[in-house]
Amino acid sequence: MSEKLRLRLLDELDQLEIIDPHTHINPHAPASQTLADLLGYHYYTELAHSSGLARQRIEQPGLEPREKVRLLVKHLAPLDNTVQYSWLVEMAQQFFEFEHDRVTQANWESLYEKASQKMGAPDWSTQVLARSRLKGVFLTNDFDDSLEGFDTEIYIPCLRTDDLVFHLAKPQVRTRLAKATGIDPVNIGQLRAAIAGLFEHFTSKGARACAISLPPDFAPSKVNEQTATKGLLQILKVGEQADVDSRRILSSFVFWTIAEMCAQYHLPFDLMIGVNRAVYTSGVFQGQDLYDSRVSLIQYAEIFNAFPQVTFPISVLASVTNQELVSYAWLFPNVVTNGHWWYSNTPSKIEHDLSHRLEAVPRTKQIGYYSDMYKLEFALPKFGMYKKMLAKVLAERFVVDYRWSEERAVALGTQILRDNTEQIFPRR
Amino acid sequence: MSEKLRLRLLDELDQLEIIDPHTHINPHAPASQTLADLLGYHYYTELAHSSGLARQRIEQPGLEPREKVRLLVKHLAPLDNTVQYSWLVEMAQQFFEFEHDRVTQANWESLYEKASQKMGAPDWSTQVLARSRLKGVFLTNDFDDSLEGFDTEIYIPCLRTDDLVFHLAKPQVRTRLAKATGIDPVNIGQLRAAIAGLFEHFTSKGARACAISLPPDFAPSKVNEQTATKGLLQILKVGEQADVDSRRILSSFVFWTIAEMCAQYHLPFDLMIGVNRAVYTSGVFQGQDLYDSRVSLIQYAEIFNAFPQVTFPISVLASVTNQELVSYAWLFPNVVTNGHWWYSNTPSKIEHDLSHRLEAVPRTKQIGYYSDMYKLEFALPKFGMYKKMLAKVLAERFVVDYRWSEERAVALGTQILRDNTEQIFPRR
Amino acid sequence: MSEKLRLRLLDELDQLEIIDPHTHINPHAPASQTLADLLGYHYYTELAHSSGLARQRIEQPGLEPREKVRLLVKHLAPLDNTVQYSWLVEMAQQFFEFEHDRVTQANWESLYEKASQKMGAPDWSTQVLARSRLKGVFLTNDFDDSLEGFDTEIYIPCLRTDDLVFHLAKPQVRTRLAKATGIDPVNIGQLRAAIAGLFEHFTSKGARACAISLPPDFAPSKVNEQTATKGLLQILKVGEQADVDSRRILSSFVFWTIAEMCAQYHLPFDLMIGVNRAVYTSGVFQGQDLYDSRVSLIQYAEIFNAFPQVTFPISVLASVTNQELVSYAWLFPNVVTNGHWWYSNTPSKIEHDLSHRLEAVPRTKQIGYYSDMYKLEFALPKFGMYKKMLAKVLAERFVVDYRWSEERAVALGTQILRDNTEQIFPRR
Repeated sequence: MSEKLRLRLLDELDQLEIIDPHTHINPHAPASQTLADLLGYHYYTELAHSSGLARQRIEQPGLEPREKVRLLVKHLAPLDNTVQYSWLVEMAQQFFEFEHDRVTQANWESLYEKASQKMGAPDWSTQVLARSRLKGVFLTNDFDDSLEGFDTEIYIPCLRTDDLVFHLAKPQVRTRLAKATGIDPVNIGQLRAAIAGLFEHFTSKGARACAISLPPDFAPSKVNEQTATKGLLQILKVGEQADVDSRRILSSFVFWTIAEMCAQYHLPFDLMIGVNRAVYTSGVFQGQDLYDSRVSLIQYAEIFNAFPQVTFPISVLASVTNQELVSYAWLFPNVVTNGHWWYSNTPSKIEHDLSHRLEAVPRTKQIGYYSDMYKLEFALPKFGMYKKMLAKVLAERFVVDYRWSEERAVALGTQILRDNTEQIFPRR
Repeated sequence: MSEKLRLRLLDELDQLEIIDPHTHINPHAPASQTLADLLGYHYYTELAHSSGLARQRIEQPGLEPREKVRLLVKHLAPLDNTVQYSWLVEMAQQFFEFEHDRVTQANWESLYEKASQKMGAPDWSTQVLARSRLKGVFLTNDFDDSLEGFDTEIYIPCLRTDDLVFHLAKPQVRTRLAKATGIDPVNIGQLRAAIAGLFEHFTSKGARACAISLPPDFAPSKVNEQTATKGLLQILKVGEQADVDSRRILSSFVFWTIAEMCAQYHLPFDLMIGVNRAVYTSGVFQGQDLYDSRVSLIQYAEIFNAFPQVTFPISVLASVTNQELVSYAWLFPNVVTNGHWWYSNTPSKIEHDLSHRLEAVPRTKQIGYYSDMYKLEFALPKFGMYKKMLAKVLAERFVVDYRWSEERAVALGTQILRDNTEQIFPRR
Repeated sequence: MSEKLRLRLLDELDQLEIIDPHTHINPHAPASQTLADLLGYHYYTELAHSSGLARQRIEQPGLEPREKVRLLVKHLAPLDNTVQYSWLVEMAQQFFEFEHDRVTQANWESLYEKASQKMGAPDWSTQVLARSRLKGVFLTNDFDDSLEGFDTEIYIPCLRTDDLVFHLAKPQVRTRLAKATGIDPVNIGQLRAAIAGLFEHFTSKGARACAISLPPDFAPSKVNEQTATKGLLQILKVGEQADVDSRRILSSFVFWTIAEMCAQYHLPFDLMIGVNRAVYTSGVFQGQDLYDSRVSLIQYAEIFNAFPQVTFPISVLASVTNQELVSYAWLFPNVVTNGHWWYSNTPSKIEHDLSHRLEAVPRTKQIGYYSDMYKLEFALPKFGMYKKMLAKVLAERFVVDYRWSEERAVALGTQILRDNTEQIFPRR
C-alpha cells in the first residue's frame, strides 16, 4: 500500500511549477550544447577520477567534447551505482529518448548525436525549463557581475560574497571591488560604502538573495571599527601575507557588514556552512573540497541574535549538523532550513534530514530543495530525486504513521517545494 | 502486514500502567485549568514565535487565558505539521471529545469551553492519570522544596541540582541552601554537610532520583579539598564576579560531592547532557535554550569510573551523541539510557536512537521514555508518540528482521517502558 | 512484496564464497574447542558484566570451560535482545542443531555437549570454513610474528602496527623489533631499516595488508628526520617517561614511515579510526575501550594527499563519521570504505551507513564487511547480519526506489561482499 501511496503523492508533486532557489547557471549559456557539458559536471569527473581515471586525462588541454564523453563513458561503470549516475540516465531518458538503463561504450554515440541535435535547437533552454516545470532559477553572481543581458525574471540574480569575506587580502579582489563600485576600499568607511554599492546594484537588478559558503571553523563576531581598521591596514600593506588574526578579523567585519546590508536592502542571507576548500589538492576541477563535520550553529548564534530582521536560509554540508539546524530553525524566527547541500544531497541523507525537518520546523520555514546545478538539464533529475524522498517521507511518516489525508500531505509538500521560495525570497 | 503488526503491538503497549520517570509537574497544581495551560507550553509559544508571532504579544502582561488561546490559535497554522501540534490535537480528541484534526479559529472556542468544563472537575488530575494509565510521575524539585502537601507515592520527589552545581556563586542560591539546611556553606566541610542535609531531607520524603542538566562543555574532574576551598573563597568574596576557573572548579567539586551523596543515599543520578542556556536571547519563556552538539561522554568517563555504585541514567540532547550513549551503556554497568530528550524527542529521532539502543544495550538498562511535561495532560500524547515508534521498531527490526514472536517483542517493550523504571529507581 | 524481495536477494548473497578481510583468528587454533570459546568472546563477557555480573567472577583464575559457560548462561537473559546474543543463537542453531531461540539454564548443557562433540572433530575448522563459505581470512599479526606453521593461502597475514606507532617508548617493543629484524632501532636510519625488514618478511609470507587502530585525537603530519631524531633520542633515554610531544612526534614519524613502506611494498594500509583504549578501567578483558566521536578524516588529509599510490581502506568507529568517510572515498582515489567496525557493527547502524555508501561511493571502492572475529564460528552469524541489511538496502533503496532489476542489485551486492576484497587486497 505504501508504495502505491508514494507514487500517488509523487504524481501530485510532479505537477508543481517551481523556482529553483540556488544554482550556478550561467544566464548567457544556461543549457548544454553537447553531452560533454553534462558529463563535465564535477560529480562525473570526480567520481571517475576517484575510480581510477587520471586527472591529466580528464583535463587534457584541447580535448574535444566528443572525445571527452568517449573517455568518461569508458570509465563510468564503477560509478553506475551512484545517485549521480542515475541523474545522467534520467536526463538521457527524459530529454533524449534514451531507452537503456546504463550509458555504455556500446550506446553512448547515438545518445551523443541525439543530445547534440536536441541541444542545437535555438529554444533548447526554454524547452528544458518547460519540461522541468521551472519558472525561474536563482543565480550565483560574482559581486562584480554587471547583471546585464539576460531576463532577470527567469534568471534571478543572487549576490555571492565569498570573495569579499575571505579573499579581500588578494589585491585583485580589491581591484575588482573598486572597479565595480567606483570606490577604492582603503578605509573602513569606504569598504562599507563599496559593499553598499554592490547591494544597491544587485537589488536594482532584481536580486532576491545574498549568499556565502563558509568553512567549518568560521565563528563570526561583531568587530568594532577600530579593530577592523587595523586588520584592513595590515591587508592593504602586505596582502595575503597578513597574519591569520588580521585576516580573521577582517572576515568577521566584512561578514557583519554584509548582514547589515541585507537588513538595509531586505535581502535574505543564505549561509552555506561547513566546507573546507582544496582538501584533496590533486583533485579534478571542483572536485577538491571536503569538510570537517565538527561544526556547530552556535558559531552563528551571535549573528542570528544581532539581526532579527534578516532571514538566514541555512544549508549545512554534513547531515550530523541537521539536528542543530532543525533546532535553531525551531527557535529563531530568522533561521530557515534550506535544501540538501552537496555531500548531503543523496537519497538516504535527504530522507533522514527531511524527516526531522518536517516533524519539528514550522512548515513556513523550510525551503525544500535547490539543485545547485551548473546546467539547466540537471534540475529535472535532481528535483526528481528530492521529490521521490519527499513523497516517501510524507507517505510513511505522515499518512501512515499520523493518519494524515493524502491531500494534507500533498499540501505540505507543495508549500515546502514551491510556495516557501516565493515567500522567503520575495520579489521586490 | 507490517502496519497491522505495528498496530497489534501498539495495542498491547497501550495497556500498560506506567510511571513517568521525569516531569516538571507541580504537585500542587498538576493538571490544567484551561486550554491556555496547554497552549502555554513552551513548544507552542516558541514555535508560534518562530513562525512570526511577536514575543511581546505572547507575553503581554495580564493576558487572560481565553485571549491567550485566541492569539495562539490564530498563529498555529504554520506549525500544524509539527509533532508538537499533533500532541495538542490528540489531547483535544482524547480528553475533550474534539472531532477535528486541526485547532482553528473556527473551532477553538467550543474546545475551550469543553476543556474548561472538564478541567473544572475536582478530580480532574486523577481522571487524567487514570485515562493516561499513569501510576505516578517523578517531579523536578528545587533543592529547597519542602516536599510537603502532596502524595509522594504519586508525585515522586526528585532532587534537581543545577543551581548547586552551576549557580552557587549567586548569593541567593547560598542563602536558599543555608535556609533549607540550617548550614551556612562558608567552607568545604559545611558545603558538603549542607548538601548531605538535602539528600537526607529528600530521601526521607521518598525521593527516587537526583538530576541535573549539563552544558556541552562541562567535563567534571575530581577536585581536592584544598583547590575547592580556593574556589569557594573566591565565590564567597566576589560572587558571580569570580573568575571562570574558580567557578569551574567549584562546579566540578559540587558535582562530585553530589555523586558521593548519591552513593551514600542510594539515589540514581540522572545526567541530562548537552544544553546551552539562553542562546536565543530574545526567545520566549523557556524557548531560549539550544546546544552545541560537539559533546562526548568521554567527558564523564572519570566519574563513571569513580562511582561504580551509582547508577547514571543518561539523556543526551543531540541524536549524534546517541551512539556514544549506547556504547557507554553497553560497557559501563552503571550507565543506563534514559528517554529521548527535548530536541531529540520527535518521531524520526526516537526511531533512530531507539533502534540502536534496543539492538545493543542490555534490556535491563534502558529507561524507555519520560514525558518531561509541565502539565499532566501531556503524558498521553507524548507517551503515545513514543509507543508508536516503539511498536514500529519492534515490528520492523525484531519481528520482521529477526523473526521474533510478537509476544517476545511486547515483553521487551514492556520492560523498557514500564518495568525498568521500577527497577532502576527503586522505592525506598 | 518488499519482504519477499529481501529474502530473494538474501538467498543469492548467501551463495557467495568469500574472503573475510579482517579478523583476529589465531591460525594455530582458528576454531573453538568448547562453547566457552564462543561465550568467552568479549561481547558476551562485557554485556554480562554491564548487566551486573562481577568481573572477578567472569575472570576468576582456573575457571573450567563448562563452569564458565554455566556462569555466563545464568546471566544472559538481560542481553537476549542484543544482536550479539542473536549471533550466539544462530551459531548454536546452524552448527549444533540447537532448536530453541534462547540459550537458558534449562537447555545449555546439551548444547555444550553437542558443541564439544562437533568441535572435537579433527577437521572442525575446515568444516566451519566450508559451512560459512569462507575461502580465507585475513589475520592480525603482531609485527614480530614468525608467520610459520599455517597455510597462508587460507590464513592470510596482515601486519598490525599499533605497537610500532604508539608503543615504541616501551623498551620491550624495541627489543621485540630488534629481535624480529636483527636491527636495533637506535637511530632514525635503523628504525626505518627495521620497519622495512618487517615489510620484507611479511610480504615474503603473503601478507596482503598492513593495519592499525588509531585514537580519535591522532592527526599525523610529515615529520622531518631531524625532529624525529630528537623524539627518538628522548624515548631511548627515558622510555615511557618521554614527554607527550616527543611521543607524538615519533608516532607521526613511524606512521609516515609505515605508509612509505606500504607504497614500496604495495600493501594497502587499513586505518581503523577512532578508538580510545582503557576508558572503562575496571572493564573485563577487551571490554574497556570506548571513544570520543568528535573525530574528522580531515586529520588524515595530509597523508591521503602524500601517498596517492597507497590504498587506505578506512574503518570508522562511530557512525557519525560515516558521511565523512563516504565523501572522502568519493573524492580521493586512494580512500576506500571498509566494513562496519565494532560499535557501528549492529543492524541499524549498518543499514544507515551502508545506504549512504551504496548511493555515493563508486562500487569498486567499498569493502562490504569483515567479521573482526577471534574464532571462526563467528563469521557465519556476523556476515549473516550484514547480508540481511545488505539485502534490505538493495531491495528498498535500489529495486523499489530506483527500479533496479534484482539481478543488478545482486551484482552490486556481490561486488561489495566478495569481488572487491580480491581487487583491493590483491594476491602477490
